[in-house]
Amino acid sequence: MNITALENKILKYLSKYTKTTKEIEEAIIESSFFKTFKKGTILLKEGGFSNECYFVLEGCMRSYFLKDGEEKTIEFYTEEDIVTPANYGKSTPSQYYLECIEDTIVNVGNPSIEKEMYQKYPQLESLSRVIAEVILTKQQESFTEFKTSSPEERYLNLLKTKPDLMQRVPQHQIASYLGIKPESLSRIRKRLIASNLLS
Amino acid sequence: MNITALENKILKYLSKYTKTTKEIEEAIIESSFFKTFKKGTILLKEGGFSNECYFVLEGCMRSYFLKDGEEKTIEFYTEEDIVTPANYGKSTPSQYYLECIEDTIVNVGNPSIEKEMYQKYPQLESLSRVIAEVILTKQQESFTEFKTSSPEERYLNLLKTKPDLMQRVPQHQIASYLGIKPESLSRIRKRLIASNLLS
Repeated sequence: MNITALENKILKYLSKYTKTTKEIEEAIIESSFFKTFKKGTILLKEGGFSNECYFVLEGCMRSYFLKDGEEKTIEFYTEEDIVTPANYGKSTPSQYYLECIEDTIVNVGNPSIEKEMYQKYPQLESLSRVIAEVILTKQQESFTEFKTSSPEERYLNLLKTKPDLMQRVPQHQIASYLGIKPESLSRIRKRLIASNLLS
Repeated sequence: MNITALENKILKYLSKYTKTTKEIEEAIIESSFFKTFKKGTILLKEGGFSNECYFVLEGCMRSYFLKDGEEKTIEFYTEEDIVTPANYGKSTPSQYYLECIEDTIVNVGNPSIEKEMYQKYPQLESLSRVIAEVILTKQQESFTEFKTSSPEERYLNLLKTKPDLMQRVPQHQIASYLGIKPESLSRIRKRLIASNLLS
């Protein structure tokens, strides 16, 4: 994918939330900074520091942490997801890992670019507030959904909201994301197939 | 508590995140709008619409939803917590209830006040962005913690982060918040007392 196509993806995303002016579009493009990571790249380690946030243009990242030597998947990030590590721009060490589980192309942000852009274009700060609130609401809904669903319901919901994830991610990572053991996920899948809820 | 004391609570909270000017402080106070609710007041119902968000100055709110006739607690909100229903300012119906479980005093926001204030004082929008990002990070951490902990670990974590909640909230609501049955919470408490981890 060429640079212009990547830039257009960013502008398309932003246009969902605001009417940008030509000037702002040019500013965004001017400050856009792309990076490509190979599958398997670890972008952040437990105990490490984070000075970058990402907008995923192509590919898939996964956050996870180690508990008693086992990887517990927290989140998957695919196209149009924003990845802001909890310790981004702070002096606190990360509690988790961030890994590219596919070749991944991102737009990179960092605190100094952000600060400069907000000063130059206050409208961008307004846009960031709107986007932060949208993400907050989505996350609140995911948390509620997770807390109040059975593993089977969580699996069905994931199939509905991120159907492509099943083809992109190993089953054991999906299981740990759902908070269950791989054997339990196999049982759930068998049960759903038997009752014709899954093909 | 008198109005000035309430206003000072708001300014104290905001000063954690930004240096406000005298002008902005006066604007915040000018637009501040307080409400008092009696214990038991339902502020939002499943299927209802929300045009208000709250900053809790005193008291406690709880969000929950009904599943097979049972109340599932999503979140507790106490002093200095911001409550923004997922459907705030939108035309989508709420999936959950919001209830005051103590007499509660809040500062109320609504979309038109917000819009007016942001236009008049762009610095406030910047502050809102910072606060939205702080809440987003906190929520991300809670979600991660919830997903990757055992019920016992979740209970110990709640004791550490919100120790006063135990005295303020009925045990069965704490249990449903932790995603377990009241009997399981009793067993956990007994086990922790027996091993001297709880007094």
